[in-house]
Amino acid sequence: MPPRSPLAPKRPPVLPAIAGVRLAAAETGIRYRGRSDLCLMEFASGTTVAGVLTRSLSASAPVERCRANLKGGRARALLVNAGNANAFTGRGGLAAVDRCVKAAAKATGCRPGEVFVASTGVIGEPLPDQRIREHVPALVKRLAATAWDQAAAAILTTDTFPKLATRTASIGGVDVTINGIAKGSGMIAPDMATMLAFVATDAKIPAAVLQRLLARAADCSFNAITVDGDTSTSDTLLLCATGQARHPAVRAAGDRRLKDFKLKLDDLLVDLACQVVRDGEGAQKFVTIDVTGAASDRAARTIARSIANSPLVKTAIAGADANWGRIVMAVGKAGERADRDRMTVSIGGVVIAAKGERRTGYDEAPVVAHMRGREIDIAVDVAIGRGKARVWTCDLTHGYIDINASYRS
Amino acid sequence: MPPRSPLAPKRPPVLPAIAGVRLAAAETGIRYRGRSDLCLMEFASGTTVAGVLTRSLSASAPVERCRANLKGGRARALLVNAGNANAFTGRGGLAAVDRCVKAAAKATGCRPGEVFVASTGVIGEPLPDQRIREHVPALVKRLAATAWDQAAAAILTTDTFPKLATRTASIGGVDVTINGIAKGSGMIAPDMATMLAFVATDAKIPAAVLQRLLARAADCSFNAITVDGDTSTSDTLLLCATGQARHPAVRAAGDRRLKDFKLKLDDLLVDLACQVVRDGEGAQKFVTIDVTGAASDRAARTIARSIANSPLVKTAIAGADANWGRIVMAVGKAGERADRDRMTVSIGGVVIAAKGERRTGYDEAPVVAHMRGREIDIAVDVAIGRGKARVWTCDLTHGYIDINASYRS
Repeated sequence: MPPRSPLAPKRPPVLPAIAGVRLAAAETGIRYRGRSDLCLMEFASGTTVAGVLTRSLSASAPVERCRANLKGGRARALLVNAGNANAFTGRGGLAAVDRCVKAAAKATGCRPGEVFVASTGVIGEPLPDQRIREHVPALVKRLAATAWDQAAAAILTTDTFPKLATRTASIGGVDVTINGIAKGSGMIAPDMATMLAFVATDAKIPAAVLQRLLARAADCSFNAITVDGDTSTSDTLLLCATGQARHPAVRAAGDRRLKDFKLKLDDLLVDLACQVVRDGEGAQKFVTIDVTGAASDRAARTIARSIANSPLVKTAIAGADANWGRIVMAVGKAGERADRDRMTVSIGGVVIAAKGERRTGYDEAPVVAHMRGREIDIAVDVAIGRGKARVWTCDLTHGYIDINASYRS
Repeated sequence: MPPRSPLAPKRPPVLPAIAGVRLAAAETGIRYRGRSDLCLMEFASGTTVAGVLTRSLSASAPVERCRANLKGGRARALLVNAGNANAFTGRGGLAAVDRCVKAAAKATGCRPGEVFVASTGVIGEPLPDQRIREHVPALVKRLAATAWDQAAAAILTTDTFPKLATRTASIGGVDVTINGIAKGSGMIAPDMATMLAFVATDAKIPAAVLQRLLARAADCSFNAITVDGDTSTSDTLLLCATGQARHPAVRAAGDRRLKDFKLKLDDLLVDLACQVVRDGEGAQKFVTIDVTGAASDRAARTIARSIANSPLVKTAIAGADANWGRIVMAVGKAGERADRDRMTVSIGGVVIAAKGERRTGYDEAPVVAHMRGREIDIAVDVAIGRGKARVWTCDLTHGYIDINASYRS
């Protein structure tokens, strides 16, 4: 196992219990030895659910099941395994999901349409679902409201640290809690949710409203990160609301009483998404890219992603090389409007180039000093309009090659 | 300097003289020590020219000049320097090009509109053009018809071997010669010409016809390769026809007498483009990706590029890991139609997965043996239609990180 990312938080947050949520983890031994790789979450009756799933055309069997079950808007159980993605496994993969769902429904006493599933790991290997199902009854017996850390650990693959976050929000003067866990750490690209992220709250929010809040929050968090530009077949982000908190009823996403909840949900998802980047395979530096002056926010996002996904920009950052010309290259290849002759490029707050050329008397020393640090800030103004976007990524290092030239073997 | 690519040709071809073309190289010392970095080509009066240039919105000053001069359709001189791209250098960069063009026009006795220029290297540094111009008179004195190898060597940057190719074609029963040189080897992405490639022939072909032949040939060669998905600001592919061969006149791209010339031109450009891939930064394996069964040829190209640019596919190849699930992932993220449940994936001619899942009794051993070799073949049929495409790429290795985390410093 690679060493813990140098960008990891000093210590993981301790997540409080959420009324209506219980969790447990187990070790199936399907792929890993000496660690848990299976997690069950149980939700109280009445829990609503929203989800954002991969847009990959090779979506995994569990993703298909989640897409179908989301239509019901209700969740009572979530079963997640790590090590095998159950993707590109044909009809056998769908049948395996079906058997797992039925086992979880039976053990928790709910309908199959209320059971959600997620799998992460190798693509194309048949899922030995018997080894998952045989653990379900024991998992149900061990369910505990405080086992968030165990759940976060059980869903990891090449991650080097568990990703947890918690926030408290006020709805109509009543406090509610939002907890979330996530996993990365390769095959991470924007334009969808990350591989796996599960968020729960005791707020009481109708499923349709929850879906609007989640889609919006995902767009400015998980959809704004990239590790390697590779989009997973398994990306799944679920938000479950148990409705156990006793706040005034909310019926629309525009309800003013949801203002603080939205803020805190956005904040929690950004926190989890950035943790995924901080544990990007081989990551040594955390990079924030701000693009302004684009034709639209969407254009700004495209340009920011072009910079964030450029192997030449990412390797320059790895080498602490203030090679800002590669940023210009990545803007040029993005295909969105940019005024080459009025563009501004800054690193670490230092304006390097303006009006289409390097500034007279530019001193590289402070930029190099910034690039030797762990947190790198890049800002580009393309001088066309008012569109802006922020994207987070990490550098591209020997560690990425080490991990991915030998992941499966 | 990194060691010579293990994928390099055993020995470079010896290029014959082409009537109407003379070449010379020199050492300016602008960036490199102990090697040539400046090349002048002179073309006989009456030479026509065609070009394919980068579509980057941050195109370099020399690219802008080529775009303007191509309208005239005539070439008498080509001046190329390596080590400084003269890109994102503002009005100063354009003025530097103008001074170089005037110096070359004066020394060779032609009009500035007949002088072409190309620069490759670091982006954003002002070009010390005085150090180029002062070499031009001496270059003109040393022009020789056989100096193709010297020209090929002078235009390299991080390349580990010079790229040369030659073909003989028949036009109306008369033999003509086509010579070409190119350079890579990072910032290579399809959808444009590679960084620099210069082709000359003694055929007599009007500029408009030449342009059609070149655009078509570029599409199935330089536009079908990728090293890192990063598009250069300087990509320039020029084809000059001196008209010294005494073949029957051709006036249209559809002329049947051009059939063999087209074949040989396509073949030569594929040869040069594949040499660029074989010298991709850090490349240890040469990868051919065939996609069939797509909705259109264009869709097939998009899917093939998605596979070729996927860091996870490229690192799996580097590690000789038969991780075909990553190929499925790359197909899924391409955004083009693919029938997940009827797709076929093969490596090294071995069908691994068909009808959306791994074949029963699949034996990985021959696939692993294939992946341990230098030449890797990947084939995917997406079971939608008749569109097909071939794309060439290389693996992603520690060598790429080594080169690019320290290129400029």
